[in-house]
Amino acid sequence: MAELKQRSEFFNKKLAGYLKQGSPNSLYDAVRYLPLAGGKRLRPIIAMFACESVGGDFEVALPFGVSLELVHNFTLVHDDIMDKSKLRRNLPTVHATFGGPLAILAGDTLFAKAFEILHGTSVEPSILNELSFNMSKCTQEICEGQQLDMEFEKRKKVTEEKYLEMIEKKTAVLFAFASQGGAIIGNGSLEEIKSLKNYGKFLGLAFQMWDDYLDLNSNEKKLGKDIGNDVRNGKKTLIVIHSMINADDVDKNILVNILGNKDASESDIKKVVNVFKKTGSLLYVKKKALDFSEKAKKSLDVLRDSYAKTILRELADYSISREK
Amino acid sequence: MAELKQRSEFFNKKLAGYLKQGSPNSLYDAVRYLPLAGGKRLRPIIAMFACESVGGDFEVALPFGVSLELVHNFTLVHDDIMDKSKLRRNLPTVHATFGGPLAILAGDTLFAKAFEILHGTSVEPSILNELSFNMSKCTQEICEGQQLDMEFEKRKKVTEEKYLEMIEKKTAVLFAFASQGGAIIGNGSLEEIKSLKNYGKFLGLAFQMWDDYLDLNSNEKKLGKDIGNDVRNGKKTLIVIHSMINADDVDKNILVNILGNKDASESDIKKVVNVFKKTGSLLYVKKKALDFSEKAKKSLDVLRDSYAKTILRELADYSISREK
Repeated sequence: MAELKQRSEFFNKKLAGYLKQGSPNSLYDAVRYLPLAGGKRLRPIIAMFACESVGGDFEVALPFGVSLELVHNFTLVHDDIMDKSKLRRNLPTVHATFGGPLAILAGDTLFAKAFEILHGTSVEPSILNELSFNMSKCTQEICEGQQLDMEFEKRKKVTEEKYLEMIEKKTAVLFAFASQGGAIIGNGSLEEIKSLKNYGKFLGLAFQMWDDYLDLNSNEKKLGKDIGNDVRNGKKTLIVIHSMINADDVDKNILVNILGNKDASESDIKKVVNVFKKTGSLLYVKKKALDFSEKAKKSLDVLRDSYAKTILRELADYSISREK
Repeated sequence: MAELKQRSEFFNKKLAGYLKQGSPNSLYDAVRYLPLAGGKRLRPIIAMFACESVGGDFEVALPFGVSLELVHNFTLVHDDIMDKSKLRRNLPTVHATFGGPLAILAGDTLFAKAFEILHGTSVEPSILNELSFNMSKCTQEICEGQQLDMEFEKRKKVTEEKYLEMIEKKTAVLFAFASQGGAIIGNGSLEEIKSLKNYGKFLGLAFQMWDDYLDLNSNEKKLGKDIGNDVRNGKKTLIVIHSMINADDVDKNILVNILGNKDASESDIKKVVNVFKKTGSLLYVKKKALDFSEKAKKSLDVLRDSYAKTILRELADYSISREK
């Protein structure tokens, strides 16, 4: 998507100015490492287009966008420690590079910085307070989602409903806040703000399902992170949940034996993917992701037509067609 | 100190209401564990008395005080992971109880909650923004201080100046923010706000030096945390810095061999303390702490006389006479 590339280049240029080197160097090397290593910048881009779609100037939403990106990066840094992930954005993870203690501290600093930068938004003080309050609530939900995700790894059975609750918290609330906050900053009407919040939520749900799908259907280099990690960690993705219900006894045994096995080989991963295919679980989840993406687009109907609205629609399509 | 006890009991009652159980239970068990395990509550108490000392109602400063206490607790939870500490407030640390991943997440949640609760302060929106901005800056400095502290462990030599920079960031800025913020909430004059900020800073410096002293001169049960941990971690406290300069070659060898030795026995710790005594380093640091405590009290001179002012003076004395 050309607009995505263009807007993310604009964002990347600005981001470097917000993340200057600091003292002690060692801390700020670790702080800057992941955010400046690239990424899709989807949350800030959604915030800026949401702002524009209600008639606002997208540049006013920039500090808010930066703070969203830093919250996202802070959670990645800490999640990668918890999940023992080794690769992210084609680079060794922060804790693999700088060690666990510094990675914890770098995450904390990124989170603190998110609030500092948010305060640079040129809006009424009462609106700033609303954004800052929402950001803290949102981060608490992300933590709740991450804990559910870790708990589910240890459970034998998780329902689709619980899975949806988990990914809504872990992923969708930050997307919802991105589009909602952008609309607030752009001075949108209450109806526009609510619709854009829904847009972000549905897009986030679609995005996370597609992420689960990519973990099995991409290659490491393209994705920039470890492939099959979800299987090895025993993550209860919707693919797993659906497949466990629909597999015959032989295939169920394959799943039970390999899911959550940290030492699963590439051929083990392939066996699991074959079961997922047999039970139609990959198609089931693709279809679900498509439904949520459609709901996201439908949420935009109340907005007047504009370039920004068109891009937001395209972003909903992109979230379930991207290869990384 | 009777006032300290009374005010901390008031605070503890209110705190429980701010830290209700949430879902998932496992996360909120870990979130509530340390803050509800007690503690001196010095930062919120200073905030409330600072508010009162400029003519404000101390209860208005309560949410701010809670947010300070949560920031403090969040840094303890994460620092204890980094320092591999096993004991805190006479209980196993959060990571020792709930495991590393959940401890990281509990710390993150506490930090997010601090901002949420801060937003419950009944002040003008622009003042709330100032507090929220300062809190994010303050936390970044705490992270910088913690990183310096960890870096110094690996260095052979640290100057007194660098040590002071480290403890100012790691400890004193949050005390400075407590008294400054209390004064802002109490609608103090610019001069009062500045003086109270200085009060908090000097008290914080004295407090940290006394903390270093207690690590060697208390017992585990009284202190509620591991004794001699600073020695085993090779922490460059001012006691160590002063002793290394003033010890003879034989004693210097004792220090070099034992400081930073994770397996140092109790008798090793005693040997080190004997060198500290010989070089007069314990007295040197007690004297320095006393000087800072005096400076803290001197900063209060611009305030009109009041009950709150008297207590703030007593708190400066308490910070260098407490046994835990």
